[in-house]
Amino acid sequence: MPLRTSVGIVGAGPAGLLLAQLLHRAGVDAVVLEARNRDYVEHRQRAGLLEQGTVDVLRSAGAAARLDREGLVHEGIELRFDRRSHRVDFPSLADGRRVTVYAQTEIVKDLIALRLEAGAPLLFEAVAQEIVDIDTERPVIRYFHDDAERTLECDFVVACDGFHGIGRQTVPEDALTTYSREYPFAWLGILADVPPSCEELIYARHERGFALHSMRSEHVSRLYLQVAPDDRVENWPDERIWEELELRFAVRGDWKLHRGPITEKGITPMRGFVAEPMRHGRLFLAGDAAHIVPPTGAKGLNLAAADVTLLARALGDWYAHADEAGLDAYSERALRRVWRAQHFSNWMTTMLHPDPREDAFSARLHLAQLEYVAASVAGSTMLAENYTGLPME
Amino acid sequence: MPLRTSVGIVGAGPAGLLLAQLLHRAGVDAVVLEARNRDYVEHRQRAGLLEQGTVDVLRSAGAAARLDREGLVHEGIELRFDRRSHRVDFPSLADGRRVTVYAQTEIVKDLIALRLEAGAPLLFEAVAQEIVDIDTERPVIRYFHDDAERTLECDFVVACDGFHGIGRQTVPEDALTTYSREYPFAWLGILADVPPSCEELIYARHERGFALHSMRSEHVSRLYLQVAPDDRVENWPDERIWEELELRFAVRGDWKLHRGPITEKGITPMRGFVAEPMRHGRLFLAGDAAHIVPPTGAKGLNLAAADVTLLARALGDWYAHADEAGLDAYSERALRRVWRAQHFSNWMTTMLHPDPREDAFSARLHLAQLEYVAASVAGSTMLAENYTGLPME
Repeated sequence: MPLRTSVGIVGAGPAGLLLAQLLHRAGVDAVVLEARNRDYVEHRQRAGLLEQGTVDVLRSAGAAARLDREGLVHEGIELRFDRRSHRVDFPSLADGRRVTVYAQTEIVKDLIALRLEAGAPLLFEAVAQEIVDIDTERPVIRYFHDDAERTLECDFVVACDGFHGIGRQTVPEDALTTYSREYPFAWLGILADVPPSCEELIYARHERGFALHSMRSEHVSRLYLQVAPDDRVENWPDERIWEELELRFAVRGDWKLHRGPITEKGITPMRGFVAEPMRHGRLFLAGDAAHIVPPTGAKGLNLAAADVTLLARALGDWYAHADEAGLDAYSERALRRVWRAQHFSNWMTTMLHPDPREDAFSARLHLAQLEYVAASVAGSTMLAENYTGLPME
Repeated sequence: MPLRTSVGIVGAGPAGLLLAQLLHRAGVDAVVLEARNRDYVEHRQRAGLLEQGTVDVLRSAGAAARLDREGLVHEGIELRFDRRSHRVDFPSLADGRRVTVYAQTEIVKDLIALRLEAGAPLLFEAVAQEIVDIDTERPVIRYFHDDAERTLECDFVVACDGFHGIGRQTVPEDALTTYSREYPFAWLGILADVPPSCEELIYARHERGFALHSMRSEHVSRLYLQVAPDDRVENWPDERIWEELELRFAVRGDWKLHRGPITEKGITPMRGFVAEPMRHGRLFLAGDAAHIVPPTGAKGLNLAAADVTLLARALGDWYAHADEAGLDAYSERALRRVWRAQHFSNWMTTMLHPDPREDAFSARLHLAQLEYVAASVAGSTMLAENYTGLPME
């Protein structure tokens, strides 16, 4: 007997879980299939910076109790270049908006707990094999679970299964246009058991490379170094990492980088990617399944939240009023935000990362841009309003 | 007998002539040497868009009588893309600042007339051969005039002799750092005896290439088309030019391009260039001698005016109070404005010109940037405040 549901969701990352939660609150049933086990999903280290709109959506989904207790509200960031420091104040520039530091992995834990408490279907180690009949009104997900091949019949399928998932691959090649950009650098990221050396995030452009100081909590620091895309973690013993961070964050006047035990190290390539459209028949793509941004603008998680917010509303309208307008508009509306975020992420990335391939002229242009962002209200506002997130449509 | 003066100025373009006029008003004597004849200099077609600050300087120099009568004051520009039109309003975004359309060639005529009326030295067909002793307190310009080699002894020499002049070449190579960028397109520019088809300038991005509608007066239109850098005027009969302009300016709704007799055609490559520093000993560089910007931001003439405004003040302080601070700060202060203008010009250029070498990802980023500039107050302000000119320091 095949399983039946209204909305089949592939992937229990933040996109899939938030969509399921929003649909649950709207009275639309869904089944979430996740290839990995619960422990793996709850411990993936990813982004951790939430736009005001993402916090608002999590609240409206009833999923923000712990976020509201433990999240660190930030009212600005610091830019460092030329050994000088410039603060960009968010509320005064971006209509009172703030950002919240709260790790994606914590959001995932909160949403899983809510779903399991509600007794709503969420299957771990349920590996989607293929999605078929997406051109009909009864698309089907074939998946492997509990040692057997199984079938989930749906009204709609939403692929929240990430860049390497089967969702996007299910769309016929000639129906999809893809755009991509490989950036010629990567981020070496660490977690360290040491209180952050700053109250707000520091984005530093140094001739040796970009560095970012962030945090997970009042006791755990998260730091990043620009490295070559083919660099390896083995090349970076702890001591070298701290020394390099100190060099890149150096500033005139007093400032001290706190060192502590490094508990995790990883290198992430930087890529931009967009697939258009984000719908084919009854299959919808959301989050990383449709687009990847370089992490400099902190937009990946927030775009995923924006996608599923649009989708949940559109599906709600369909089930409540047989209104298809939202579903028909989904791809175009989501993509407008995606390209805005791609542009902003590219703007932040190229401004802050010295590019080994770029000539001296380009390097000077990027410094001139940083000077302008620091000196002009319009320049700072461009950063602040994009960083805190433009209003959802 | 060598000629003696306080400030020797090489070049009677707008930079050299305005500097001479500002010095004259400050009671500092100068000699201007110009390689070409008066008629040639007065008929070179160049830029024609003046920042508020440039108009203010011309007024304070007593050189704005005709400009104030005949200049066309513009309060905005129009951006066209995706067959839509967006106006950027300057006064409301940029602290009340406006721009004025008044051709560089008219400024040159006005300044020459003023100088000759005042009986101040301005030599045409005086070809500077070399500038020597710039490391001493008595630099000398050797020039050719009236069939003889002559010598001009100065306290200071200012090279306003353009990109190909001898001024920059006089600086020892190891004392100069240069930055340059060739853009992979050029502008085909025309003058036409026809009233402008618009009241304000139109900057259009079309998949076939950039187009700009500008004007010289109420009766003369100035229009530009993006072409390949190796394209030639012979490939562009009048009919083809008008047809291409019509395609690129096409917009939803009513708009008509007026055609008329084309009186001039030319192709200009697009280049960015900066030489640092802008001073060596007693030799100063100003305007195109030190920097070139692509014309999209309309900054070339305005940067030249800003350079000589700083220089005239600094030289005035030196002669009045033996104060060297302004001269010592000149290069750094001028270069801050130059790099801001390079960044803005690059930003406008890359946003508005489809680049034949760029991938689809870049093209989409540039469109996203245009959408943002049209939709966001911060984005429009960034354009407006740079276009009308940031305040002089």
